[in-house]
Amino acid sequence: MKISARNILKGKVKKITPGSVNSEVLIELPGGLEITSIITKKSVESLGLAVGKPAYAVIKSSEVMIAVD
Amino acid sequence: MKISARNILKGKVKKITPGSVNSEVLIELPGGLEITSIITKKSVESLGLAVGKPAYAVIKSSEVMIAVD
Amino acid sequence: MKISARNILKGKVKKITPGSVNSEVLIELPGGLEITSIITKKSVESLGLAVGKPAYAVIKSSEVMIAVD
Amino acid sequence: MKISARNILKGKVKKITPGSVNSEVLIELPGGLEITSIITKKSVESLGLAVGKPAYAVIKSSEVMIAVD
Amino acid sequence: MKISARNILKGKVKKITPGSVNSEVLIELPGGLEITSIITKKSVESLGLAVGKPAYAVIKSSEVMIAVD
Amino acid sequence: MKISARNILKGKVKKITPGSVNSEVLIELPGGLEITSIITKKSVESLGLAVGKPAYAVIKSSEVMIAVD
Repeated sequence: MKISARNILKGKVKKITPGSVNSEVLIELPGGLEITSIITKKSVESLGLAVGKPAYAVIKSSEVMIAVD
Repeated sequence: MKISARNILKGKVKKITPGSVNSEVLIELPGGLEITSIITKKSVESLGLAVGKPAYAVIKSSEVMIAVD
Repeated sequence: MKISARNILKGKVKKITPGSVNSEVLIELPGGLEITSIITKKSVESLGLAVGKPAYAVIKSSEVMIAVD
Repeated sequence: MKISARNILKGKVKKITPGSVNSEVLIELPGGLEITSIITKKSVESLGLAVGKPAYAVIKSSEVMIAVD
Repeated sequence: MKISARNILKGKVKKITPGSVNSEVLIELPGGLEITSIITKKSVESLGLAVGKPAYAVIKSSEVMIAVD
Repeated sequence: MKISARNILKGKVKKITPGSVNSEVLIELPGGLEITSIITKKSVESLGLAVGKPAYAVIKSSEVMIAVD
């Protein structure tokens, strides 16, 4: 499946913090960057996410803001 | 100002494509990564964005999805 | 690629309205339902979207609201 | 009240999974489709949602992505 | 229609800036506050929005970030 | 830091409802208005949010819908 989301960043799962409905997933990217994601607990299970496994952070471009110092 | 958005990635502006109401801004991150953002044309102006200038991509963690191969 | 977004609805492209940066894409679903999507013009091109072609509407569950009469 | 969100899909509540702050609501649409929504627990209460009751899934078009095989 | 979005702020339309697919709508709230919204041009038309008319800004709580100085 | 989000509303924290992964934060604005936000529990901690403290509600304009009676 190819998706319209313009930002698809490859990394690996660094940490999963499960909640009651949502879980927090930390993805480690190349260059020392990290991305935090909140997805449903069911998605964590259905994707088979686990620490150390490769995964992509996917972000629709309309959800990305820009900031300057 | 310190914001609750968990993802604040430092890079620099690589390209700006202006539209009528929204503009597309491409941010170059360390490690060869790139992030595309859609913000209003007025925000591009009020932040003084220009190619080559440092800028942050800011993303609320609830907007980040995860994918696997 | 398998994505965490819980809502992946199969249909076909009914109409594409191009703008300057964003385009509007209308997806026809089974049962007479329709879904309108705003994605970037570049995504319309890179996905090769065209009227009549099969496509999925993909929606993160945290973006879905509920209403009652 | 009439809202700008372009996607208003009529169905009925199939399942409610309550969390601590957010709850997951599954809406059954015509044609066998289903939509999963994450809304606050307080909204589930204030709307009086219950399994079997009619409800709409409401989605802003800028939140809908498109995918192809 | 009653919606799950927790933030429904009553005001009136102060300005509409039409684009090719999206339009920018400025809502004036009590207390001198203003809210900027980007919705589709078609929604501006179907809601019959016009400067001076009463309107609500509607925001899902998961889309609201918090910042401090 | 200056951000592209067009809606930055100054108020103070009225209530914090912690969940397992996300927390609900209620901001009181001038003119008697209130805004509800869902952010991660970690963000509540890292921002040092507490009842009575000044805070901003920050909303990207593409996340704001409009409604009429």
